[in-house]
Amino acid sequence: MERVLSSELAAHAGEEVLLQGWLHRQRRLANVSFLVLRDRAGLAQVVLSEPVELLPETVLEVRGRVVTEPQLELHDAAVTVLSAPVEPPPVELYRPEPKETLPFRLDHAPVALRHPAVRDRFALAAKAVHAFREALDGLGFVEIQTPKLVGAATEGGANVFRIDYFERDAYLAQSPQLYKQVMVGALERVYEIGPAFRAEPHETARHLSEFTSLDAELGFIRDQRDVMAVVEQCALAMLAAVGQPASGPIPIVQFRDVRSGEEPDLAPEDERRICEEHGELVFVEGFPTAKRAFYTHPGPEPEWSTGFDLLYRGLEIVSGSQRLHRYEDYVAALESRGLDPASFEGYLEAFRFGMPPHGGFALGLPRFMGQVLGLHNLRETTLFPRDRNRLTP
Amino acid sequence: MERVLSSELAAHAGEEVLLQGWLHRQRRLANVSFLVLRDRAGLAQVVLSEPVELLPETVLEVRGRVVTEPQLELHDAAVTVLSAPVEPPPVELYRPEPKETLPFRLDHAPVALRHPAVRDRFALAAKAVHAFREALDGLGFVEIQTPKLVGAATEGGANVFRIDYFERDAYLAQSPQLYKQVMVGALERVYEIGPAFRAEPHETARHLSEFTSLDAELGFIRDQRDVMAVVEQCALAMLAAVGQPASGPIPIVQFRDVRSGEEPDLAPEDERRICEEHGELVFVEGFPTAKRAFYTHPGPEPEWSTGFDLLYRGLEIVSGSQRLHRYEDYVAALESRGLDPASFEGYLEAFRFGMPPHGGFALGLPRFMGQVLGLHNLRETTLFPRDRNRLTP
Repeated sequence: MERVLSSELAAHAGEEVLLQGWLHRQRRLANVSFLVLRDRAGLAQVVLSEPVELLPETVLEVRGRVVTEPQLELHDAAVTVLSAPVEPPPVELYRPEPKETLPFRLDHAPVALRHPAVRDRFALAAKAVHAFREALDGLGFVEIQTPKLVGAATEGGANVFRIDYFERDAYLAQSPQLYKQVMVGALERVYEIGPAFRAEPHETARHLSEFTSLDAELGFIRDQRDVMAVVEQCALAMLAAVGQPASGPIPIVQFRDVRSGEEPDLAPEDERRICEEHGELVFVEGFPTAKRAFYTHPGPEPEWSTGFDLLYRGLEIVSGSQRLHRYEDYVAALESRGLDPASFEGYLEAFRFGMPPHGGFALGLPRFMGQVLGLHNLRETTLFPRDRNRLTP
Repeated sequence: MERVLSSELAAHAGEEVLLQGWLHRQRRLANVSFLVLRDRAGLAQVVLSEPVELLPETVLEVRGRVVTEPQLELHDAAVTVLSAPVEPPPVELYRPEPKETLPFRLDHAPVALRHPAVRDRFALAAKAVHAFREALDGLGFVEIQTPKLVGAATEGGANVFRIDYFERDAYLAQSPQLYKQVMVGALERVYEIGPAFRAEPHETARHLSEFTSLDAELGFIRDQRDVMAVVEQCALAMLAAVGQPASGPIPIVQFRDVRSGEEPDLAPEDERRICEEHGELVFVEGFPTAKRAFYTHPGPEPEWSTGFDLLYRGLEIVSGSQRLHRYEDYVAALESRGLDPASFEGYLEAFRFGMPPHGGFALGLPRFMGQVLGLHNLRETTLFPRDRNRLTP
């Protein structure tokens, strides 16, 4: 008999079916006993005439008849154990929301991630990622994979991990920034979904050593507004995919108009205030050139850049800009920041041989999902988070 | 005027259009001058009455009238330079195939990757990856991202990269194997597309320090044949996507029947011979348990495992198996191989609390694309390859 999923039961009313899954919960009354089976699609209630004595998380096969009145259940069920746990699980998976502390759940992630409300976050994240790809595929972008092992700590020296690489040092890429720009020269429109690594010395709700970054870059733009149009398409598609639809056009405000006093950047309370005043989704444009990365193209007034952020529910979820595209502008930008153009040799080669006006953006997946789900610790939206103090499981 | 792509010219016969791209080639005759413009979609020929003196790879905007007879060209063209190279490029991009040596092209990858035949390999790889995802999405798999920073060098000690991780050591994951198995407990069917890291001491055509691995794992299987059915669906979908359609069912041969003499593994010449005898795609099943990883489930005769390989055109492109799923089997398997169960604590926790029979497989993207394209050095199908001696560009 072919297995059916818990979500397919209603379509099999009156039939004999085979379910497979985990013993999620059991209840014993005077004359009858129930068990709730969990599979990848959800939960199913099974009525047993004889109680079974099994540990939670026992892997089961249940054959029975589907009854829909007064409720959807399996009757006349025969239970077979496929795989037995060694002991009861350390977390209570049957509660509507996990009740254990976050550190405890992270220590026991291999079993705590089975909680239906928790695992569903990651199935939802997969839908967001799918929507991102679909939006960009539709715009002629090509998905690429660029190296995470790099020869120089080029993008902000301090927060980089060093690796023993045979007889020398290598580093872990903090982002695919330099490579995705180079690839604009070959494919014009590229995106990458992959890990980014930051040696964050702080252990806060917002910092992780490794996270999934969604990056895109496109050539032949007029200015950053062409990039923002792509960001808008991606963000609206992703929000629709996770059941939080929003509609465009997303308002655009100028950094100079929304900052606090003369501050050169936005503080968390500024981001919250801007969303309260302008909407759930807001683009902030024109950050100070001096506060953005060296590759950021200045705007028409050079002290204000083409750099923009997209805020969602009071937090920056996307950062982007038009980039410099002329070789001599790179050399000048690196030198003015005290960086040595020689250590950017491979990157700069792309610009020596003709690069179009281009720009791009990056979105951190755990942060995006945190805002969608109202979970403000990135460890809640990362399967196996890594920070200064956590490397396992 | 909105830009059109070179591939769209025929649809604009007689119209005035705007093209943007790179100066791919130019030719000057007595009374007329031609330039070939390269954009992400291909090449376009432009006829000029006045010759232009521009370096190859100059980024251009060309306005002109589309003529289709005697050939598709742009006439009455006006050329604007968007971005000028500093000097002529070190590689000849206009040749039908790159003529420079591979090491030279790798040294100059930021510009050598612009060669149409080279960049097209990576656009084709993106189609293969898309087909893999689409096949698995259709089967209820969820895409996940698991950590590349790991606390112990669990999977084969020697070939692992060590990282300075704050005050201690971390390692780069050699595969998502242990994590994808753990996630079967939460989501049943998962896949991941991400980097895998191997400190390969050899510099051969087949070894890289970093490559894109396509991994999948599924629960509630009967045996490895359920995994092989998923492999077949993925492989046929990927081959169709790259224009090399093949049809199933893929023949399955037994390792014992096709090995050379009493050899415990297949040599490259065995893989070639097996494909010559059995077809372009062949599953080899039942590798010796002792030669496969500790998590491999033995077959009905315990010295022969459930491990299988998929060969394509004489080379293994997929490796997979049913896995062990009982906690006690893991403890026994680790101990019998002299591995310490304590260093697998997080991984083993999944098996302490009920794991279904499951299995999975992995496919290396550069190797797959190498077989598709007939390119037998993985450096030809990797954007920025990494090996013992190469960390840049």
